[in-house]
Amino acid sequence: MSGTSTSTDLDAVDPLARYVELFVPGAHIVSYLDGNSLGRPLLATRARVDDFIVNAWGDRLIRSWDEQWMSLPLDLGDRIATIALGAAAGQTVVADSTTVMLYKFIRAAVDAQQRSSARDEIVVDVANFPTDRYLVEGIAAERGLTLRWIEVDPDRGVTAEQVSAVVGERTALVLLSHVDYRSGYLADMPAITAIAHEAGALVLWDLCHSAGVVPLQLDAWGVDLAVGCSYKYLNGGPGAPAFGYVAQRLQGELVQPIQGWMGAADVFAMGPGYRPAEGMRRFISGTPPVVGMLAMQDMLDAIETAGIDAIRAKSLALTDHAFALVEQLLAEFGVGIVTPREHDRRGSHVTITHPDFRAVTETLWSQDVIPDYRNPDGIRLGLSPLSTSFAELRVGVEAIRAALLALR
Amino acid sequence: MSGTSTSTDLDAVDPLARYVELFVPGAHIVSYLDGNSLGRPLLATRARVDDFIVNAWGDRLIRSWDEQWMSLPLDLGDRIATIALGAAAGQTVVADSTTVMLYKFIRAAVDAQQRSSARDEIVVDVANFPTDRYLVEGIAAERGLTLRWIEVDPDRGVTAEQVSAVVGERTALVLLSHVDYRSGYLADMPAITAIAHEAGALVLWDLCHSAGVVPLQLDAWGVDLAVGCSYKYLNGGPGAPAFGYVAQRLQGELVQPIQGWMGAADVFAMGPGYRPAEGMRRFISGTPPVVGMLAMQDMLDAIETAGIDAIRAKSLALTDHAFALVEQLLAEFGVGIVTPREHDRRGSHVTITHPDFRAVTETLWSQDVIPDYRNPDGIRLGLSPLSTSFAELRVGVEAIRAALLALR
Repeated sequence: MSGTSTSTDLDAVDPLARYVELFVPGAHIVSYLDGNSLGRPLLATRARVDDFIVNAWGDRLIRSWDEQWMSLPLDLGDRIATIALGAAAGQTVVADSTTVMLYKFIRAAVDAQQRSSARDEIVVDVANFPTDRYLVEGIAAERGLTLRWIEVDPDRGVTAEQVSAVVGERTALVLLSHVDYRSGYLADMPAITAIAHEAGALVLWDLCHSAGVVPLQLDAWGVDLAVGCSYKYLNGGPGAPAFGYVAQRLQGELVQPIQGWMGAADVFAMGPGYRPAEGMRRFISGTPPVVGMLAMQDMLDAIETAGIDAIRAKSLALTDHAFALVEQLLAEFGVGIVTPREHDRRGSHVTITHPDFRAVTETLWSQDVIPDYRNPDGIRLGLSPLSTSFAELRVGVEAIRAALLALR
Repeated sequence: MSGTSTSTDLDAVDPLARYVELFVPGAHIVSYLDGNSLGRPLLATRARVDDFIVNAWGDRLIRSWDEQWMSLPLDLGDRIATIALGAAAGQTVVADSTTVMLYKFIRAAVDAQQRSSARDEIVVDVANFPTDRYLVEGIAAERGLTLRWIEVDPDRGVTAEQVSAVVGERTALVLLSHVDYRSGYLADMPAITAIAHEAGALVLWDLCHSAGVVPLQLDAWGVDLAVGCSYKYLNGGPGAPAFGYVAQRLQGELVQPIQGWMGAADVFAMGPGYRPAEGMRRFISGTPPVVGMLAMQDMLDAIETAGIDAIRAKSLALTDHAFALVEQLLAEFGVGIVTPREHDRRGSHVTITHPDFRAVTETLWSQDVIPDYRNPDGIRLGLSPLSTSFAELRVGVEAIRAALLALR
């Protein structure tokens, strides 16, 4: 390929090219390649938030709880479900941080299993995101459970064969990430879910690196539980709340341990004795974080208009282009590629390695070229299809080349 | 007193009168008397949030985590501590919902007690806010603890004598609200804390209805733990995150159960095995809710400038005026007053009762007069000293009178 013209050509034929204009441009940004860590704000969010401050908060005031905010965690959950999760309404809620939501779902799942069976093991992989691993360590210790660790190849992710080898009659829960946060490996969700179910286990999927960018079919794949974050490919802003999915068939059996007023059957009765609400509301604990739920609504509008399949097509074209650019411009420096080449095993970020990448990232950030650095030697090129152009990706890879050259 | 002139006179001599102009006026609002439930936005918040979207989020992007957001939960916690809690730096954090923060602190406290003693009781009162009661019900059930319920007078709140009668060598934790959300009763925090300590118990205070409006001296009073919300008198916006205080001397012993990456000793090492951070960071679980931490900063500026003692003085003047207006305008309808008359036993809302208050509230809300209704027959007049004027209070009470007249 001929680098420059190819990036330009790819932008010229990109059916989603115009979506880039929906985002706050960033007065100094030269190349933003960290959409898998923090999605960019949309321009529409400025008006949405100001209108919220002046009207829903500033003028309707407390009445907005009745008028829209009480149902917002469920309404917004349904919207995420329809647009990004392949899930019917009534199974998704927005609340808490990803960590807290995961805690509640893990506890709900293992507590339910322990009430009805002798299942006392949680299956988890050693490469999962720290929060996921730390949570199950703590829960296993306090609930007397055993952790079964899958030793995954750090350059790949967990496979159906690996899960098959460890699940069994003692497995209460399998906790896995759909896209590995380091390698970008895309796990085979339908196959692994089926394997866990054959063993009688529940499965909880962490969707942080796939929601909004990889098409999902949670209902069709029979997923039990899923949690994801809204500040990556859903552009909800730093620390925006998590979403959580519980399959309809399980909602009656699962009870989460953080019993708060907003999850009670009758919120404003305020009587004695907690009784969990029917449906997804029981997974809410405290007052919904309304301010944090605003921005993602603009990205959901954009994803809905573009269509998740078109987004996936551009994501694959962007990651293909990243592979080509890295080989063309960075191979001579000994830069390695961690992310799988197969389309169906790849999320939307490409991870490359080089011993000097810590220093390189520092240089790049000072130049307003912003990839993501991960210990000890990784750079993640996070490609968010609606806000990342092919040319922007090329500029970023060229900057990495220049920084490596300067270190020679 | 001569009603109209008195309200006007009180505004004329109110040294904080000009602060009302700092708030978004609310295009239709006639009288807002629900600041104890949802504080109004400040005008400065509009510019702050827009600047945040365009710059810290939109241009600095992921770099803002290093530049400000990672330390924001602790920096903002310190600011709340200094301005509103009477607490030195290094003991307060902003994170989660109030419910989740309470869960973590209750668990941390009772788990620590159970590691070192046979203490297996939690003392709580029957009139506490539902979330507080529901949480300890769940925690007691799963940890094998006993709840000792204090039967408080619903028109008052928990007293030092009542606490003294129930604490003892089995008490692990005393959980109480500083200001009763229904009656407005202000508990004697220093006396009750001392009584609990004499019995060897820890005390966790819920400050939701006092932080920002009642002067606190958490350090001087020897408080162990406290949690409060930021969307009432700290004006953080609907569902803005909680703050939590843990006395320095206890931080090393207390470990909370929701082990997430942001509470780990080395956040970005991402290695195996959770080890809690030193200091207050260990009480953080997930990614800090940055968007929800913006608005309260403007109110903290205003509180700092006005001074918490001046705010308390106006709060008492407002609640005094509420008593006078209710007696003058509503007594003939049989409206009762629940809130204590003594200054030192009173928060910043006045609760009045009448069998028709559900219907009255509906009428008032449609007229843009907004008090807070509480089952079964209560109206709370929530008076936020920086945003509520004496005349606004009078207009609200007059509207209640008119609504009661119309029902005759």
